[in-house]
Amino acid sequence: MQPTNTIRFESFSDGVFAIAVTLLALELRVPYLQSGGFSLQGLAPLVPELLTFVLSFIAIAIFWVNHHQLTQIITIINRRRILWFNMLFLLFVTLIPFVTQTISANTLSRVAVSMYAFVVFGASTSFSLLRYWIHKSADERNISMKRSSIGPIIYLLAIVASVFSSAFAYVLLAIPPLFYFLPKSTTRPL
Amino acid sequence: MQPTNTIRFESFSDGVFAIAVTLLALELRVPYLQSGGFSLQGLAPLVPELLTFVLSFIAIAIFWVNHHQLTQIITIINRRRILWFNMLFLLFVTLIPFVTQTISANTLSRVAVSMYAFVVFGASTSFSLLRYWIHKSADERNISMKRSSIGPIIYLLAIVASVFSSAFAYVLLAIPPLFYFLPKSTTRPL
Amino acid sequence: MQPTNTIRFESFSDGVFAIAVTLLALELRVPYLQSGGFSLQGLAPLVPELLTFVLSFIAIAIFWVNHHQLTQIITIINRRRILWFNMLFLLFVTLIPFVTQTISANTLSRVAVSMYAFVVFGASTSFSLLRYWIHKSADERNISMKRSSIGPIIYLLAIVASVFSSAFAYVLLAIPPLFYFLPKSTTRPL
Amino acid sequence: MQPTNTIRFESFSDGVFAIAVTLLALELRVPYLQSGGFSLQGLAPLVPELLTFVLSFIAIAIFWVNHHQLTQIITIINRRRILWFNMLFLLFVTLIPFVTQTISANTLSRVAVSMYAFVVFGASTSFSLLRYWIHKSADERNISMKRSSIGPIIYLLAIVASVFSSAFAYVLLAIPPLFYFLPKSTTRPL
Repeated sequence: MQPTNTIRFESFSDGVFAIAVTLLALELRVPYLQSGGFSLQGLAPLVPELLTFVLSFIAIAIFWVNHHQLTQIITIINRRRILWFNMLFLLFVTLIPFVTQTISANTLSRVAVSMYAFVVFGASTSFSLLRYWIHKSADERNISMKRSSIGPIIYLLAIVASVFSSAFAYVLLAIPPLFYFLPKSTTRPL
Repeated sequence: MQPTNTIRFESFSDGVFAIAVTLLALELRVPYLQSGGFSLQGLAPLVPELLTFVLSFIAIAIFWVNHHQLTQIITIINRRRILWFNMLFLLFVTLIPFVTQTISANTLSRVAVSMYAFVVFGASTSFSLLRYWIHKSADERNISMKRSSIGPIIYLLAIVASVFSSAFAYVLLAIPPLFYFLPKSTTRPL
Repeated sequence: MQPTNTIRFESFSDGVFAIAVTLLALELRVPYLQSGGFSLQGLAPLVPELLTFVLSFIAIAIFWVNHHQLTQIITIINRRRILWFNMLFLLFVTLIPFVTQTISANTLSRVAVSMYAFVVFGASTSFSLLRYWIHKSADERNISMKRSSIGPIIYLLAIVASVFSSAFAYVLLAIPPLFYFLPKSTTRPL
Repeated sequence: MQPTNTIRFESFSDGVFAIAVTLLALELRVPYLQSGGFSLQGLAPLVPELLTFVLSFIAIAIFWVNHHQLTQIITIINRRRILWFNMLFLLFVTLIPFVTQTISANTLSRVAVSMYAFVVFGASTSFSLLRYWIHKSADERNISMKRSSIGPIIYLLAIVASVFSSAFAYVLLAIPPLFYFLPKSTTRPL
């Protein structure tokens, strides 16, 4: 493969991230509210939708921040597999709005949580592989995959948990974002 | 955090702005019109929708112009919190098409206006915090937050007003855009 | 206003153009087709939709090509009005998918054609004003507005025509694109 | 035509690619799943949708990779026809989500497969013509069109096949992606 610069690689990825994040909000169902009085009851059905919206927004935002920092390492792409692991990663990112809508329409379904967990597991795993190949392409030796495997492992556990309990699976899905924002771990990409 | 340039930061944000603004128009409901004659009556239900579309378009456009000018200050991002206050700001921007649709489907509902006011308040406040940290990152001292707090305060008043009167809340929501276009205030970002 | 470079100005505009053009196709209604046999009859309702899709795609594409060439003239934006005439222009561009859907759902309605003509007239006129201010900002004298006024005038005639006859209005709407692709006029932006 | 650089040409195209790819996933229908138990049966209707999603994702991804490598050849666009063959190519790309939805709603319809094959044939053919003009613009002689004509020919055969058998047409549609990923052919754009 002819070496190419990373500009379009980044702008295409940014486009996908920006659209995925904006479509999350598009999928919120418009509530029908009463004209008289000021009662917040009509917003009750929005609560699970807003929670899943925020969960997925944070998940995509973390992926973007990590992707942003990863692409700083290289200025030239000289291996076709970097393009294709990025595509695989973006394929899972584009599925996040769909599985978000699936869990907000089927909050109590274990199959729905399982689908969600599977998609973020796919995104997380393909991102770790992309990271590996980008570091490799920068001629680094001894690339540590320790940090990169935390996300995939937790999401894999969430898939397993979803077979038995949707509540436990949700808890596992919330760990990586929380973990990410803990003071000490701020330098650790998931 | 490793310092990173602002290119992808800007292109990701531009993507979100561009999509939010275009989705506003997508949400207008296609009218069903009669084939014979030339009567504008069929367009009546479009009027409130078009007004809220224009209101939100201007709100997002002002945010974009201010964001555009703010990012001129820095060329490098060296604090993770700049990335995350930007994400928080964009989270509220992506919600603008949703609350726009909510008010145009529930024009007379005070709860709907309240939701709209809350989202623009959130966008305005997180933008002011983003501005603070970007100026701080450029080693400025005595950063004036006077101008930056006008928007959040008016939108906060709109939230309060919406509990009592939707009309009064709408008036407050229209002030920041009008204020922005007044001759003397053209250099004042909200 | 502090002078700013044109990079984000262009990337925001490109985002809006790209989304508007892609949403045009999203709005095509998926036909329900029979499994047996190979009959193209099921596609009949698609014909007017595809024609309006192509018409609007070409209209947005011409706007993009002209916008693309216009922004080559300047490298710095030093007048706030350039930002805002661009916003006004983009406001009309974002409405193109909506009016396209309106005419394909109400093919024979004169009001629908009128709405379409009004939106492209708005886009065309605001673009001509944007062009004027960009040339002015580049310190040009004797800026010819002759070419720039052809588009707005034809679209204005289409609005007037739509009051009497939708067929005649459609013919007028098709003129600017055809005119654009005629061999001699290839250097004339509309 | 005044020569223009390729930056906006690329960023506009990237926007269209990014949106087309993300809209593919948006069109997946949210399944309604049971709350009790863990049965994957509710996902059965998703299977054909996911298969066509992946097929189209790969098709658009290959087009992006090839477009990305093609634009490396030139840094300046000096012929209007390059802009317009790119527009024609993007017109077909924006139709891919629509025909994907058409085949996933009408899996067994030969007309649906025919529409899909026609759109990818159009994209593939207009891309080959774009490639020809870009190489020509870089003053290359003896531009080989051999490789560039493989994709169009296979997709043309798929159109013909769809008149008789949807199964056979699907097989033909799957060949170019598979062919692309075969070890030896990795350097051959389709």
